[in-house]
Amino acid sequence: MGTKGKVIRCKAAVAWEAGKPLCIEEVEVAPPKAHEVRIQIVATALCHTDALSIDPAFKGAPLPVILGHESAGIVESVGPGVINFKPGDKVIPFCAPQCRKCKFCLSPLTNICKNVVTDQELMADKTSRFTCKGKPVYHFLGVSGFSQYTVVSDINLAKIYDDANLERVCLLGCGFPSGYGAAINNAKVTPGSTCAVFGLGCAGLSAIIGCKMAGASRIIAIDINSGKFPKAKALGATDCLNPRDQNKPIQQVIAELTGGGVDFSIACVGGSEVMRAALDCTTIGWGTCTLIGVAADDNDLTISPVDLIMGRTINSTFFGGWKSVDSIPKLATDYKNKKFDLDALVTHTLPLDKINEAYDLMNQGKR
Amino acid sequence: MGTKGKVIRCKAAVAWEAGKPLCIEEVEVAPPKAHEVRIQIVATALCHTDALSIDPAFKGAPLPVILGHESAGIVESVGPGVINFKPGDKVIPFCAPQCRKCKFCLSPLTNICKNVVTDQELMADKTSRFTCKGKPVYHFLGVSGFSQYTVVSDINLAKIYDDANLERVCLLGCGFPSGYGAAINNAKVTPGSTCAVFGLGCAGLSAIIGCKMAGASRIIAIDINSGKFPKAKALGATDCLNPRDQNKPIQQVIAELTGGGVDFSIACVGGSEVMRAALDCTTIGWGTCTLIGVAADDNDLTISPVDLIMGRTINSTFFGGWKSVDSIPKLATDYKNKKFDLDALVTHTLPLDKINEAYDLMNQGKR
Ligand SMILES: NC(=O)c1ccc[n+]([C@@H]2O[C@H](COP(=O)([O-])OP(=O)(O)OC[C@H]3O[C@@H](n4cnc5c(N)ncnc54)[C@H](O)[C@@H]3O)[C@@H](O)[C@H]2O)c1
Ligand SMILES: NC(=O)c1ccc[n+]([C@@H]2O[C@H](COP(=O)([O-])OP(=O)(O)OC[C@H]3O[C@@H](n4cnc5c(N)ncnc54)[C@H](O)[C@@H]3O)[C@@H](O)[C@H]2O)c1
Ligand SMILES: [Zn+2]
Ligand SMILES: [Zn+2]
Ligand SMILES: [Zn+2]
Ligand SMILES: [Zn+2]
Repeated sequence: MGTKGKVIRCKAAVAWEAGKPLCIEEVEVAPPKAHEVRIQIVATALCHTDALSIDPAFKGAPLPVILGHESAGIVESVGPGVINFKPGDKVIPFCAPQCRKCKFCLSPLTNICKNVVTDQELMADKTSRFTCKGKPVYHFLGVSGFSQYTVVSDINLAKIYDDANLERVCLLGCGFPSGYGAAINNAKVTPGSTCAVFGLGCAGLSAIIGCKMAGASRIIAIDINSGKFPKAKALGATDCLNPRDQNKPIQQVIAELTGGGVDFSIACVGGSEVMRAALDCTTIGWGTCTLIGVAADDNDLTISPVDLIMGRTINSTFFGGWKSVDSIPKLATDYKNKKFDLDALVTHTLPLDKINEAYDLMNQGKR
Repeated sequence: MGTKGKVIRCKAAVAWEAGKPLCIEEVEVAPPKAHEVRIQIVATALCHTDALSIDPAFKGAPLPVILGHESAGIVESVGPGVINFKPGDKVIPFCAPQCRKCKFCLSPLTNICKNVVTDQELMADKTSRFTCKGKPVYHFLGVSGFSQYTVVSDINLAKIYDDANLERVCLLGCGFPSGYGAAINNAKVTPGSTCAVFGLGCAGLSAIIGCKMAGASRIIAIDINSGKFPKAKALGATDCLNPRDQNKPIQQVIAELTGGGVDFSIACVGGSEVMRAALDCTTIGWGTCTLIGVAADDNDLTISPVDLIMGRTINSTFFGGWKSVDSIPKLATDYKNKKFDLDALVTHTLPLDKINEAYDLMNQGKR
């Protein structure tokens, strides 16, 4: 490990300005400090959160920043005090830390570690490990996967099995566990139930996999891009609806289709309109609406007690409710054992240089 | 039973106009039709919903109407097909029907019967049993307790023990089960937890009783009227806070007091400000906010996924989550066996003639 303890120079995609394309730059990545791990990133998937965070409409990440948070890689070196990782380990970093010490980590009720509340734009000592053209560059969600090397905290990292295909398991860094876990852990989809999944990106398709795994007997997939439907069907959707093809509000279409509404709805797109539809399409009595999609600030959901009084519940998901360090290695093993398929979620594979093309593909809904 | 099958003339408080005092009138109460029961009302408590429904700011009940929905009485006569009630039975009518046949009644997940969705301003045949001065008068929430006699559906009625004190158990018609059940059935307060209860009317004080019964170790009671605090303390509140005595938002005061927020909050007053405070004062990770208070339409709660993403849940209660016909007789027996006290919830006892004074007392917060 000739690089241990030294600054590494490598390529990264830097976001200098909101709403502008990313720039491929040479950056310097400092060695890991105490309880930090430096990783060679092998693959990073694109999540809509990466786009939202530099959308000018959204008060997102401080700039300049290296985005990317669905990654897989190989440990290059570890800082003092790191005991669970060693150079050469295959690892997945993620935005959801698990310190195993705080009152939240000690509770079975949540996967929110107190450390997620402190900003993850910098390392624990409030400094960055990245510089570019002499300026410090911010981390993103504790990961910053759009770089050939990154430094992460050892509580934001899981070791996975040695022969893992990193181009697939990088999806375990956010999109897959978020959607899958939203269905299983947050909505708590029950056998025989009827579900509606809004938005068929990585999160939504993974939610469909979760609904199916939980035994839902009907899964209604909704997207404004009908091109997403064949994949949704292949993964378990029983009905596919494009709101733009309907002459009634989509919530009404779903209510009529299901004799009063679904048991579970999962909103895998942000925006007040989708959230409202997702809430309204649930049945009175016990309908649960789970929000995954993070909307821009000006697209909030206005609810009155009357929306909820007839027995509806709203909740949300952070990282699918998984305790990350405990769960990601298990999900990786489940994938290895073919409990679910990640291949269907991958549409394109591009080199880091083509990152802006990848953004375009996502924004055009072709991802 | 000389009145059986005949129209009964009696006194009732009629609301002719929104925002105006009620008028004591002579009304005609028609005999019960199929699956209906005519009741002599002995006592009716005042719930804030009675005031909201004729508040001009709220699109409430159609007029003219006989309000009142926390009642207890004695069966006068029954219509065809009624098998569970006979003249002389002591009964409690309520707004929450339980038909025992619909898919909701057959599910353990909810107390919302499909019959509650159809309006309860008229009987099942879409007519009223009340007339006054030659005009039909609407029913209210299936009860209309501000009348010496009323007619209710047999699925909106429970028989209770023979020697029940009707001036106390009338509270089992709405306020007590709603607040108590919100804590036990909807919030599902857990032993050792910390709770915040906003609004210390009948609903809020009953929620405190529920939190205490569920084993909460800390119960923070919040009201803008400090005169409510001695009673709240007597029922189990450990801390009492008046938002008007604080120089910070009440949610921040509660968060500081509890090292990050409560496990459960129960909003027993409507209004966007209270709902927002109730949501914000819950802890990240697992905080649950349960709404009881029904607000005017223009006081909705605006939530963003970010409010919920850190593990919070919002739900609401209808009639405390109790399956009414099954549960009210049991709650009456629990009261008889002194499992909880209803006496503390009664502040004044007035004759029907003084109904407007009772409203004034409620609106002044002296109830
Ligand atoms: N809560 C979490 O932990 C978490 C984790 C991952 C992603 N997210 C969020 O989930 C959302 C989805 O992420 P993704 O990566 O799957 O996005 P994506 O861009 O790949 O997919 C979004 C899909 O929604 C569809 N869509 C857009 N508007 C729609 C509408 N009005 N109705 C129906 N469908 C519509 C698009 O056509 C697209 O197929 C984003 O808001 C992201 O920030 C949250
Ligand atoms: N969901 C249900 O099934 C159900 C059942 C019963 C009552 N309700 C609703 O519950 C609410 C309470 O009913 P109630 O009969 O107990 O009312 P109430 O008028 O007796 O009590 C309300 C209390 O809230 C206090 N209050 C007012 N504004 C406040 C504020 N900003 N912060 C803190 N406290 C404040 C008042 O001082 C009063 O003590 C009403 O909105 C009613 O419609 C709903
Ligand atoms: Zn922790
Ligand atoms: Zn993501
Ligand atoms: Zn029913
Ligand atoms: Zn009431």
